[in-house]
Amino acid sequence: MHGYTISKEDYLKRLRRIEGQIRGLQRLIDEDAYCIDVVTQVAAATKALQSVSIGLLDEHVRHCVREAAIGDDPARADEMIAEATRAIERLVKS
Amino acid sequence: MHGYTISKEDYLKRLRRIEGQIRGLQRLIDEDAYCIDVVTQVAAATKALQSVSIGLLDEHVRHCVREAAIGDDPARADEMIAEATRAIERLVKS
Amino acid sequence: MHGYTISKEDYLKRLRRIEGQIRGLQRLIDEDAYCIDVVTQVAAATKALQSVSIGLLDEHVRHCVREAAIGDDPARADEMIAEATRAIERLVKS
Amino acid sequence: MHGYTISKEDYLKRLRRIEGQIRGLQRLIDEDAYCIDVVTQVAAATKALQSVSIGLLDEHVRHCVREAAIGDDPARADEMIAEATRAIERLVKS
Repeated sequence: MHGYTISKEDYLKRLRRIEGQIRGLQRLIDEDAYCIDVVTQVAAATKALQSVSIGLLDEHVRHCVREAAIGDDPARADEMIAEATRAIERLVKS
Repeated sequence: MHGYTISKEDYLKRLRRIEGQIRGLQRLIDEDAYCIDVVTQVAAATKALQSVSIGLLDEHVRHCVREAAIGDDPARADEMIAEATRAIERLVKS
Repeated sequence: MHGYTISKEDYLKRLRRIEGQIRGLQRLIDEDAYCIDVVTQVAAATKALQSVSIGLLDEHVRHCVREAAIGDDPARADEMIAEATRAIERLVKS
Repeated sequence: MHGYTISKEDYLKRLRRIEGQIRGLQRLIDEDAYCIDVVTQVAAATKALQSVSIGLLDEHVRHCVREAAIGDDPARADEMIAEATRAIERLVKS
């Protein structure tokens, strides 16, 4: 069981909405919409995706890291924090 | 006709690939994948989306702004540049 | 003469303010401030810096690219747009 | 004592270097450097600042959150994680 399991349905709903946004983008391009309007919609989808990441990271620290910290494997907690940091890095630079 | 019309097929192909990535994300969450692995895949999709935006903005300046600059409506060129700047702003902050 | 020459003093003022923010950050760390407070101030400085970039890019397109587009060296305009796109890319990914 | 205390000197050194980069930016603008060259240097300073943030967040989770998780105040750990998440959010959106 992972951090996000509790809100799994919420994440799936958000991702289905993002999938719809990506299909909407294809429609915009297909109908030769104005470039800037397409870019605006791409930014909206990007924002929604990043918000999913931030939520997942929050739950990772809140549940996985915390459980590992309390548990008897401090090396596992260290590793999990290092993974979270690298994920934040990729997120900030994506 | 817009800046991206020439490479329309390429943009559609990239967006279909991103749509596949979003569906892959739903599968990962559905199968209770490790949080960090999900975040890594979200970052990959975000990167691909931002790269679409940058391409569209490039073609906007390259074609639309340029055409307006050469044309006899300098106010339209001004407006297009302002729109591009606001789009860059949303992109950087998304 | 470059795009930003007209608002040069404004840019210098903003950069001096950012320099002050960076010195404030050193003070915070020196006084062992709470990590999250430091991160919040770093984010404020980052935001101010990115806003400088966006302003400079806007003026680059508004003046340099435009002048080149109207001028008799279309290859120079092409090059300037490519440079602007690469700069936006570095900005979005920074 | 905070998470970053151990590497305090390293953070101060990095911030002094960034302060130098900001002064270099003022020099570039003062000497009317090419817009794109200024933007490139701004992106370098932004990157250095974000790397400071990521380091601080890593140590926040590694030390502060962890200590709170092990300690007898679970509400304090919850609060610290919420603070870290909001900081990541500001960072990603800055």
